[in-house]
Amino acid sequence: MSGTDFGTEPDAGTVYLVGSGPGDPELLTCKARRLLEQADFVLHDKLPGPKIIDLLPDDRRKDVGKRAHGDRTPQSEINELLVQHARDGQSVVRLKGGDSFVFGRGGEEAEYLAAHGIPFEVVPAVTSAVAAPAVAGIPVTHRDHASSVSFVTGHEDPTKPESTVNWAALADTGGTIVVLMGVTRLPDYTDALLEAGMPAETPVALVERATWPNQQVATGTLETIVDARDSVGIEPPAITVIGDVAGTRESVVEFLANESAAGASDSATSTRE
Amino acid sequence: MSGTDFGTEPDAGTVYLVGSGPGDPELLTCKARRLLEQADFVLHDKLPGPKIIDLLPDDRRKDVGKRAHGDRTPQSEINELLVQHARDGQSVVRLKGGDSFVFGRGGEEAEYLAAHGIPFEVVPAVTSAVAAPAVAGIPVTHRDHASSVSFVTGHEDPTKPESTVNWAALADTGGTIVVLMGVTRLPDYTDALLEAGMPAETPVALVERATWPNQQVATGTLETIVDARDSVGIEPPAITVIGDVAGTRESVVEFLANESAAGASDSATSTRE
Repeated sequence: MSGTDFGTEPDAGTVYLVGSGPGDPELLTCKARRLLEQADFVLHDKLPGPKIIDLLPDDRRKDVGKRAHGDRTPQSEINELLVQHARDGQSVVRLKGGDSFVFGRGGEEAEYLAAHGIPFEVVPAVTSAVAAPAVAGIPVTHRDHASSVSFVTGHEDPTKPESTVNWAALADTGGTIVVLMGVTRLPDYTDALLEAGMPAETPVALVERATWPNQQVATGTLETIVDARDSVGIEPPAITVIGDVAGTRESVVEFLANESAAGASDSATSTRE
Repeated sequence: MSGTDFGTEPDAGTVYLVGSGPGDPELLTCKARRLLEQADFVLHDKLPGPKIIDLLPDDRRKDVGKRAHGDRTPQSEINELLVQHARDGQSVVRLKGGDSFVFGRGGEEAEYLAAHGIPFEVVPAVTSAVAAPAVAGIPVTHRDHASSVSFVTGHEDPTKPESTVNWAALADTGGTIVVLMGVTRLPDYTDALLEAGMPAETPVALVERATWPNQQVATGTLETIVDARDSVGIEPPAITVIGDVAGTRESVVEFLANESAAGASDSATSTRE
């Protein structure tokens, strides 16, 4: 039996690993909202977005996203802070953008807490990987277009031998590919997918800051999306959705009330014909 | 420009395509909760689960999941009902289990609504594909174990030539595979993955009715999971998670407060050593 290195901490508070969803405070789950109201302390980074972070009282939150000089707080330091606050008997929320268990390092935090005898609870959230395409009118699966969907991060260099992402296999699935954190390396992985034999005319959409007031969308194909990114001016954080489903946006966007709800700017549709 | 077959309906109500999340009413988003309270009419099926369906007043909801004799309501009839209620000026919620745009046919409904001039909004939800593993202590991605995750449905027969799921390519991604609706065909697709060269000792977990009071979990490997399914008595609806991340449960479950929160029975851990 693992997870007992330090035994159980009898008076420790519980740590809640909570995702914030894509950024609209109304897309917090009821449970996340309640826990944020009740928590003794909240550790968060920037990704939940200003509208959600503004809900948190300044005297019981800590931004562990960035430190002075733009450095990231090391994960080891965050882990240790979670344990310290819990050992003080506090009810602690670790708040991440999107879902903590989808490229959010929630798994590492869970393992660390268990190894230190701290009880924890996982509070699943709306993942941006599904929500960003959805609010732009793109279903990540569709009976006619995609019977699977794969999520992957785009911050690795696909030409480096140590890259762990198998873009050719992802292309071979025939399903939708959703790339998180993939604005900068867009030219690299679109090239990798073209080399793997994915058709150049495959629809691609980029959704920046989904559900934020300054949401932006750019659309194109595997061949044209880099130009579309630059002409719309898409910047991180954004989600890339690759596959026939991305074409759905075109046929529904006229009646999609999400666009006005998010206050999307005109540039949202500037790459559409 | 498509989506204008019928022009815009000037007095039509809005249709909200809303996911319910995995079943715990607290995992509804704040927005879903508000819309369910405000809606003139709600069309739902069984998958949101009894705790959420019980929140809906009987006089303004319709169960479109099953009809007499156990038949499913055809999608075409659901589409037509959505349009009719909206044309009557009603604010309509189409409520699905999980997320409407992850194997939920929300894409088809969006296209139908747009083609009939009905304004609609997509309200993303907590997808069971992420939440079910998460509440069982399993992150679908992990820096050490999985740099991608793929969602797929398990109701197709992988030995049939018309199967659209490429199990070999999914195995080749090297990432986590999450199968929705995959209890019955578990032997078929575990065989397909073994044949594709995935190691027999790859950890696998089944999570039935995640976040419901009768949540159950069975764990094993690609080789043993069918026996584990039968010995725990896992029944649909359940999520299958395949990959090294499934092994995380073992090291964290002792401190995982979700298990008691869900009121999981002892059988939840009956296959663990």
